[in-house]
Amino acid sequence: MRTRFQQGLDDLRQKLLRMGGLAEQAVDRARQAYVDRDLNRCQMVLEGESLINDSEREIDEAAFDLLAMQQPMAVDLRFILAVTKINSDLERVGDQAVNIAERVMDMIELPVVDLPVDIARMGAAVSAMVRRSLESFIEGKVELAQAVLEMDNVIDRMKDDAFIQLVKTMNQRPEAVRQALDALLVARNLERVADHATNIAEDVIFWVQGSDVRHNVNAEEHAEHAPGHPGPVRASGGLD
Amino acid sequence: MRTRFQQGLDDLRQKLLRMGGLAEQAVDRARQAYVDRDLNRCQMVLEGESLINDSEREIDEAAFDLLAMQQPMAVDLRFILAVTKINSDLERVGDQAVNIAERVMDMIELPVVDLPVDIARMGAAVSAMVRRSLESFIEGKVELAQAVLEMDNVIDRMKDDAFIQLVKTMNQRPEAVRQALDALLVARNLERVADHATNIAEDVIFWVQGSDVRHNVNAEEHAEHAPGHPGPVRASGGLD
Repeated sequence: MRTRFQQGLDDLRQKLLRMGGLAEQAVDRARQAYVDRDLNRCQMVLEGESLINDSEREIDEAAFDLLAMQQPMAVDLRFILAVTKINSDLERVGDQAVNIAERVMDMIELPVVDLPVDIARMGAAVSAMVRRSLESFIEGKVELAQAVLEMDNVIDRMKDDAFIQLVKTMNQRPEAVRQALDALLVARNLERVADHATNIAEDVIFWVQGSDVRHNVNAEEHAEHAPGHPGPVRASGGLD
Repeated sequence: MRTRFQQGLDDLRQKLLRMGGLAEQAVDRARQAYVDRDLNRCQMVLEGESLINDSEREIDEAAFDLLAMQQPMAVDLRFILAVTKINSDLERVGDQAVNIAERVMDMIELPVVDLPVDIARMGAAVSAMVRRSLESFIEGKVELAQAVLEMDNVIDRMKDDAFIQLVKTMNQRPEAVRQALDALLVARNLERVADHATNIAEDVIFWVQGSDVRHNVNAEEHAEHAPGHPGPVRASGGLD
């Protein structure tokens, strides 16, 4: 029984990694679509959305089935809950990629103007954040997750700079207002992707450290559930 | 044991309702702050954020403890998972209220200009969506949740209209660009609040119908876990 449960956990991890790959791909495509004004890539992002949505549901169901299958140990429980949270964030990363693709589709119809914003660079940094947040999940490493949290400040600054420059553009060049607004919204969408990567990193920390915290610092608080239990808290249900 | 678990579920529900109240209040305050250009209310929203964040963590911990305490039945499991998802959405509603308050603080520093957008009306509609999504949760009623999903289309249209009108304003009135942009971003934030209300409504449907689905349509799929079980699926763990 235990082995089948462990197998289920491994499957869940694999499913989430595939989902992460899809979300990362969507962001990369949207970013590249912006750089190349590439309608094809925009459409690939739009078409990819339903795959991501299906994947989200599949992962939620798998997590549910695991919780229903066996009373998990605290560390596994935290892992499963972290997976469902990361899952939501990845789905929303996909939504942001769709938003970006829609902005790019709007831009493609407008005359090309020079804009004082380096979306390609910001997008690359954001993609790296998503990738590293997934790595921190794969490796279960808090240090990697912490690095993601620090990158978020850099992205916030990039977005603020973009905001200031693009508002200036809108004020001074009425002919470029709509393009500048599109770029501003893309910057904002990228910032939101970074926020989701940050959430993922926080969930990894919750998963990895949370179990540690429960084993050590908060042992007393949970003594009621698992009196004197030295290792991972084995939940006390199934006794009724 | 069962009674203590049920008490825990009730507490969880109460906690989530309080959290919902905080999130709803934050949106209402932010909307009112926009209408009245009221710096005080903006600050109340900013200060309220940490309360919402604390509340989110508290609910996640309570959900975790319930899952660890006892192997829940499928219907309770879906409820607990729905709570954790609704919890995230409410926290993000709070974030959006903060974003709105920040935009309003920017606007307050700028000259008043007439803008072709009825943020008060859009805000009222969005607040109603949040309220109804919480009602659908309290009552466990799919019809109420469905009504929320339908309202989302109305909000999307309002946002699109606001977008079109405000871009026109930016093009034609350079002196109003920044105010128009602030209003546009507020409209976008409100749309995102509506998206979260939609997510909440979907989670209510997942919780209420999901259990039905498991009891009836998908009974076969889950027969392995609860062979021949006619009622709520009692998970088969704790046997190893």
